[in-house]
Amino acid sequence: MARLPGRRPGRRPGRQNTRDAILAAARQAFAERGYDGASIRSIATAAGVDPALVHHYFGTKDELFAATVNFPMNPAEFVPRVLAGGAEGAGERLVRAFVSTWDSPVGAAGVALLRSAVSSQLAARLLREFLTTQILRRVTAMLGIDPAEAPLRAALVASQLSGLALMRYVLKVEPLASAPPEVVVAAVAPTVQRYLTGELATGAGGRQDPAG
Amino acid sequence: MARLPGRRPGRRPGRQNTRDAILAAARQAFAERGYDGASIRSIATAAGVDPALVHHYFGTKDELFAATVNFPMNPAEFVPRVLAGGAEGAGERLVRAFVSTWDSPVGAAGVALLRSAVSSQLAARLLREFLTTQILRRVTAMLGIDPAEAPLRAALVASQLSGLALMRYVLKVEPLASAPPEVVVAAVAPTVQRYLTGELATGAGGRQDPAG
Repeated sequence: MARLPGRRPGRRPGRQNTRDAILAAARQAFAERGYDGASIRSIATAAGVDPALVHHYFGTKDELFAATVNFPMNPAEFVPRVLAGGAEGAGERLVRAFVSTWDSPVGAAGVALLRSAVSSQLAARLLREFLTTQILRRVTAMLGIDPAEAPLRAALVASQLSGLALMRYVLKVEPLASAPPEVVVAAVAPTVQRYLTGELATGAGGRQDPAG
Repeated sequence: MARLPGRRPGRRPGRQNTRDAILAAARQAFAERGYDGASIRSIATAAGVDPALVHHYFGTKDELFAATVNFPMNPAEFVPRVLAGGAEGAGERLVRAFVSTWDSPVGAAGVALLRSAVSSQLAARLLREFLTTQILRRVTAMLGIDPAEAPLRAALVASQLSGLALMRYVLKVEPLASAPPEVVVAAVAPTVQRYLTGELATGAGGRQDPAG
């Protein structure tokens, strides 16, 4: 068992190794057993360290999960801030916060995250679990969305925002890549708002209006 | 200069090598000079073959480009078919065709394409150029969209469809991953229709309504 390191940010041998071992064990655990099924205790055991050390390095289980996927923000702090104003205008606030985060230096981590999730099965499973339990579940709970509809609504929001990231920051398709944030927000916010709170089942004829 | 091979699908030595050399030269040319700047003649020269051989193996320049990015369908044939009915309902037809293609065995090529575009700069440049010149340009021309707005509209459509592919086929986020096509079409078609023909600049306050 490794001991708790001192407060000084020293270059103790093994410190980085311990951190990496915890991250690797956590990655494995979250990908295999999901967020709810992975415990700090089991992660600590797999990494060969004391659970207190996991908390010391990474804080809460949520924070450990965010470090595992290298997510550019902490959803436990970010989501409530964006959605505090309630359902009305939530789409706009969500898109604005998304664009301003990705436009900032932190956005590079987001690009790296998308890259790894698209190229590795383990990273894809991790990101999927992270999106579902850390972000989408929080969003729908805060907005009081019908639980039966919430997962689909949340996945649709993720589809628009991830595709926006892909076009604007990874493939850099113009004019989306260099459009001012306000233009992107005005164009995309109504989509996200509808996915969150609007009607999903109508609008694409052919079902309620059989055989023209 | 290589000679035109005979009609028989023989195992002539070098046949596959010639094909690969043409593809590699085309990839380089389209990524560096764009679709409009790359000529069959220059690609043939770079590959060390006669231009007639390029046409023999790959058909038109459009078809060569599609082979270069390994695109799962031929946009010159696909786009007019989907958009023949005009602007009304185009969003629904586009999403339906997109989902049915990706749901089919051909979808695997789409996943591979997304993977390579996200992990390689060259592949990203190729796909961006392909989306812009082969698909989006055709879509907006056929729908008679205001040329000043067309590139943004097209990029927004691409953002929603690529994100849908990412969530449904790559990350496999539920319930989007296993939702019936009709559910996906009903949810996403209004988004694509609005990006194609709807109002883009309103709906997200804060600009026209300064300082509440």
